[in-house]
Amino acid sequence: MAVTNSRQVRIEWGDCDPAGIIFYPRYFEIFDASTAALFERALGMTKFQMFKALPFSGFPLVHTHARFLKPTRFGDDVTVDTKVTFGRSSFDIEHKLRLDGELCAECEEKRVWVVRDAEGRLKSHPVPEAVREKFGA
Amino acid sequence: MAVTNSRQVRIEWGDCDPAGIIFYPRYFEIFDASTAALFERALGMTKFQMFKALPFSGFPLVHTHARFLKPTRFGDDVTVDTKVTFGRSSFDIEHKLRLDGELCAECEEKRVWVVRDAEGRLKSHPVPEAVREKFGA
Amino acid sequence: MAVTNSRQVRIEWGDCDPAGIIFYPRYFEIFDASTAALFERALGMTKFQMFKALPFSGFPLVHTHARFLKPTRFGDDVTVDTKVTFGRSSFDIEHKLRLDGELCAECEEKRVWVVRDAEGRLKSHPVPEAVREKFGA
Amino acid sequence: MAVTNSRQVRIEWGDCDPAGIIFYPRYFEIFDASTAALFERALGMTKFQMFKALPFSGFPLVHTHARFLKPTRFGDDVTVDTKVTFGRSSFDIEHKLRLDGELCAECEEKRVWVVRDAEGRLKSHPVPEAVREKFGA
Repeated sequence: MAVTNSRQVRIEWGDCDPAGIIFYPRYFEIFDASTAALFERALGMTKFQMFKALPFSGFPLVHTHARFLKPTRFGDDVTVDTKVTFGRSSFDIEHKLRLDGELCAECEEKRVWVVRDAEGRLKSHPVPEAVREKFGA
Repeated sequence: MAVTNSRQVRIEWGDCDPAGIIFYPRYFEIFDASTAALFERALGMTKFQMFKALPFSGFPLVHTHARFLKPTRFGDDVTVDTKVTFGRSSFDIEHKLRLDGELCAECEEKRVWVVRDAEGRLKSHPVPEAVREKFGA
Repeated sequence: MAVTNSRQVRIEWGDCDPAGIIFYPRYFEIFDASTAALFERALGMTKFQMFKALPFSGFPLVHTHARFLKPTRFGDDVTVDTKVTFGRSSFDIEHKLRLDGELCAECEEKRVWVVRDAEGRLKSHPVPEAVREKFGA
Repeated sequence: MAVTNSRQVRIEWGDCDPAGIIFYPRYFEIFDASTAALFERALGMTKFQMFKALPFSGFPLVHTHARFLKPTRFGDDVTVDTKVTFGRSSFDIEHKLRLDGELCAECEEKRVWVVRDAEGRLKSHPVPEAVREKFGA
């Protein structure tokens, strides 16, 4: 059974553009933090702690696909539901962002688990078994 | 007696720079949202609602002065304490950002209450009496 | 024959995350500005001027799909090539972001041309003929 | 004789807020990049290259003071003039941001030159003589 995470985010004045609605790159900031929050919930440690406790140097994005259905604006408290499906050294994330239960934006991400090699370069690495177990995967 | 506001903010991965610490313009995003949160607490309405309910078209910054005492990093949950002192059509804001009780950054802002004139230009306007009263000023 | 645009962008320190590479939401800021730059080149006016000269209240994103092939970092001067394909009241944008000729990121966007109705709400509107002509569409 | 730098920056749609003017934290992103550009001009290397070529792990901000005199908006091409005054292990930066010759914002920064100690912590370090010389200081 997969671990999921739900968190509430306030859309701020500074997230919005001259049309008065959210400037869409801000959604990706929200989604990136939502992915980190999902791992924090499952592992019981922050991303900062993951760098110390695990073979881990980040999970950079390979691709992302987002749909924007209904704009949100400053003062809106939106809910972001996030879930993960693991591959071997990559994983897929799905975010659903809702306002008052209505879907406003959704996003799929593919990310790669990376570590640093001897030269300090980022390279892909299998998602550690200890991580999968915490997710019940 | 002045209304103050305290809120907790998570420093995110995306707020940090290659040195691993917060990129300081992100502090100003946090401070701007903290000023809005102070007004929301005192007035019982969001900044979005203020535009509808009050003679109000924003409170742009005239100047700001910030000191950075100790860096924060992703995963840190910081507390921002905000208070206001009203002038006639301007007001002064003070933010104190702390991690585990230790002061990490502090900031003073001077902002002007503005409305739009007939041509749509922003011009200063006295802070409405109804606003001052809610702050007990 | 379609108008295309190519522009150079410096990746800045503040665009990068603790892994030392660009934080991907910054790519979407770059892409959004690249879409505006394409229209500016074709129409000979900035987006700000478009609001005054055309039936136009923005071109919000409906969906976007981006692939990240190779990270970029602060100090990199990347080139973004942008092209458009028009539908009736929507259009498709394609961005290719390259460093030293090598493709690092690519992105497709679908955007809708919008105007404000009598109540001030954003609604879709056919892309004006005068705009299509400037693009040679 | 001090080295100064002048650069042009386009204010983008995504830099602006629902009032249609620049969201002020974006100015600090511009100023931070302007400080980096000044060093790049004087040293003939990017900040990325400075990490490799010099005893250097960044120049974090100690404090900043900014005044906002006249708003700017998307489509504006502003000029930022930046100069530096060196102390021993700190330096003072001054930015003047102008639109069509008119001063819109100005900012002073105090920054500290830092290196990493054996434990990887950032600590202040005298500005290298080789750096001062390039600035003619």
